[in-house]
Amino acid sequence: MGSHVYKKVELVGSSPDSIEAAIENAVEVAGKSLKNMDWFEVIGTRGHIRDGKVAHYQVELKVGFRIEN
Amino acid sequence: MGSHVYKKVELVGSSPDSIEAAIENAVEVAGKSLKNMDWFEVIGTRGHIRDGKVAHYQVELKVGFRIEN
Amino acid sequence: MGSHVYKKVELVGSSPDSIEAAIENAVEVAGKSLKNMDWFEVIGTRGHIRDGKVAHYQVELKVGFRIEN
Amino acid sequence: MGSHVYKKVELVGSSPDSIEAAIENAVEVAGKSLKNMDWFEVIGTRGHIRDGKVAHYQVELKVGFRIEN
Amino acid sequence: MGSHVYKKVELVGSSPDSIEAAIENAVEVAGKSLKNMDWFEVIGTRGHIRDGKVAHYQVELKVGFRIEN
Amino acid sequence: MGSHVYKKVELVGSSPDSIEAAIENAVEVAGKSLKNMDWFEVIGTRGHIRDGKVAHYQVELKVGFRIEN
Amino acid sequence: MGSHVYKKVELVGSSPDSIEAAIENAVEVAGKSLKNMDWFEVIGTRGHIRDGKVAHYQVELKVGFRIEN
Amino acid sequence: MGSHVYKKVELVGSSPDSIEAAIENAVEVAGKSLKNMDWFEVIGTRGHIRDGKVAHYQVELKVGFRIEN
Amino acid sequence: MGSHVYKKVELVGSSPDSIEAAIENAVEVAGKSLKNMDWFEVIGTRGHIRDGKVAHYQVELKVGFRIEN
Amino acid sequence: MGSHVYKKVELVGSSPDSIEAAIENAVEVAGKSLKNMDWFEVIGTRGHIRDGKVAHYQVELKVGFRIEN
Amino acid sequence: MGSHVYKKVELVGSSPDSIEAAIENAVEVAGKSLKNMDWFEVIGTRGHIRDGKVAHYQVELKVGFRIEN
Amino acid sequence: MGSHVYKKVELVGSSPDSIEAAIENAVEVAGKSLKNMDWFEVIGTRGHIRDGKVAHYQVELKVGFRIEN
Repeated sequence: MGSHVYKKVELVGSSPDSIEAAIENAVEVAGKSLKNMDWFEVIGTRGHIRDGKVAHYQVELKVGFRIEN
Repeated sequence: MGSHVYKKVELVGSSPDSIEAAIENAVEVAGKSLKNMDWFEVIGTRGHIRDGKVAHYQVELKVGFRIEN
Repeated sequence: MGSHVYKKVELVGSSPDSIEAAIENAVEVAGKSLKNMDWFEVIGTRGHIRDGKVAHYQVELKVGFRIEN
Repeated sequence: MGSHVYKKVELVGSSPDSIEAAIENAVEVAGKSLKNMDWFEVIGTRGHIRDGKVAHYQVELKVGFRIEN
Repeated sequence: MGSHVYKKVELVGSSPDSIEAAIENAVEVAGKSLKNMDWFEVIGTRGHIRDGKVAHYQVELKVGFRIEN
Repeated sequence: MGSHVYKKVELVGSSPDSIEAAIENAVEVAGKSLKNMDWFEVIGTRGHIRDGKVAHYQVELKVGFRIEN
Repeated sequence: MGSHVYKKVELVGSSPDSIEAAIENAVEVAGKSLKNMDWFEVIGTRGHIRDGKVAHYQVELKVGFRIEN
Repeated sequence: MGSHVYKKVELVGSSPDSIEAAIENAVEVAGKSLKNMDWFEVIGTRGHIRDGKVAHYQVELKVGFRIEN
Repeated sequence: MGSHVYKKVELVGSSPDSIEAAIENAVEVAGKSLKNMDWFEVIGTRGHIRDGKVAHYQVELKVGFRIEN
Repeated sequence: MGSHVYKKVELVGSSPDSIEAAIENAVEVAGKSLKNMDWFEVIGTRGHIRDGKVAHYQVELKVGFRIEN
Repeated sequence: MGSHVYKKVELVGSSPDSIEAAIENAVEVAGKSLKNMDWFEVIGTRGHIRDGKVAHYQVELKVGFRIEN
Repeated sequence: MGSHVYKKVELVGSSPDSIEAAIENAVEVAGKSLKNMDWFEVIGTRGHIRDGKVAHYQVELKVGFRIEN
């Protein structure tokens, strides 16, 4: 990580399909406004149940990106 | 969540295939005795190893459901 | 607590007015099916925002009650 | 744990004698209404003091049991 | 929460009157720059003491809002 | 906080009325023996239930005060 | 706990014999300077090993006592 | 678990494909030096982002195995 | 903290020299875009090892700043 | 602890009799391969239930030992 | 730690220079009223920022000391 | 971290001088038996007090290293 400074933002991604898809969903949307994204950390996994079945996986994650000086 | 009251129960689902399947397994069995299930929260992920390979994923989760007044 | 055995259940109460009202709401509903309720422990406090204002306080709590042998 | 689904309940057992007796006390009472109990996890240990001495050990524990499909 | 992506920001609100007022204070100020605020989660409650009395309640909270794609 | 040194004590205040009253109750009693109290941090919120209703709110808090050199 | 205010102190008791003896040891010594002790909470359990055997159990606990107004 | 003694080691597995593949990857490599592996516990989930996409899932886990006396 | 509202951002600073330098590094870079920074809280301390020596200290911290209404 | 360096390993001991016996069991087995064991820290306490009774106490602990340079 | 009983107090030390100086500052002031201080444990590290620079490091710590019977 | 597998070991380093020196001390000793060390994570900071002064800083850390397949 050198002598750079990084910032982390906290996101919640969701997907009806899988935990991975929820993560990728959040990263993709974050990438529209953030450059230099470097890593993510999963903070929590939840989801909605509808009609007795899992309707969506929701993953809370932090995304770290390098701040350009 | 309006002015309803919800209850949470703690379950452990398992599956030889994936974390998602273990969650869905637990939700499906819970649905046999619970109505109005609304959300789940993953508390922990573990599993058994047999012959040097993952035999089962086990996911601890809480399931929240609305109590009918 | 003598040599009794207690059970705890996890609830989420809500109220548009206050944290205390959300707690009391959950305790009141729980009392319809539980006897001998003895104490509660707040686990988390959340809420919904609608139109830029707090719409509901939601309090996660555990309620402990004595099991009759 | 195979592909079974398990449920956990949270209990508080007490005993004037020891932490182990408080655990066993809770498990014994739980067994009057639960079948297929499989494991327990200690969540916390507390107790009452009376006249400057430990009067009761109180152990908070979760008990896991297999849900019969 | 559908397939939307949400972001959370961390705030500290304060009020001389109550915990609820400190939360509402933070949500109101956040609403000046954030759209689509959906929920909050209380992270911590602190406060200042002056002349032996509570001067301000300070509530740390996270506010979640939907990111518009 | 300058180069002062602070000490924290842990208290439990209670009130039949509200969480805030339980905090203020604890701070007031602490002030009889402590000078220079500066801040408090809420550690936990619990309470007693009697006859199916909340009888008392109990708030665990830490109170920080400056040690006079 | 009524409308009393309680204080908690943090102690470490030890015993070569058992966890319970370490707790009782701490409570007994605390009772020499504290009145109105009401409960304890175990925070951690550690110990020393000497010559490949457990030499002492050390239990960290908080002791709560009523402050007389 | 009988009266056996178990040891746990902490690993980080990675995979470009899924969380499950990262776990299986770690278990497989651990099995080259460990016998009698019995269970794993997921401690954390992170990952690298490259060019705005998830490049690798990284899963921290503990692996428990029976020590042969 | 009066009746102001504060926001916290999460940063990671790094330095080959010391933990303090990593913190100061992060605060300095944050100050290029944030006004009214008031306090920081260290969340975690990590670092890289290269050729068997500590190459960089990396400190995760939150920085709180007053939001101007 | 002087300027020595210590290593910690994580173990799970078990015993049908008591928590202390499970700890001593783990320490004894660890001593067959580790020298200079100095302290232990209990991380968790669990157990198996068979036929409605506690079959084994299982204690997770870390054992610290001095590394000889 | 033998069969002694220890007490812990919670302090916050500060220093404009370093984390270590803040710890030493707290220990030195504590030593004016406490005898037999034996160890400290860092609980948290925070600090004030003034004019875009770290003004003070503040370290929360517990100090353990032997109670003389 | 590519598709490598990493292992973490838990160490305690100490130094009379600084937290950084305690970390470096642990990393240096670990390097005598471990290859490919990649990162460390600080888990806790403690120390001994002798004659009213800090005698040693003790830092608990995890060291991660790549396992060669």
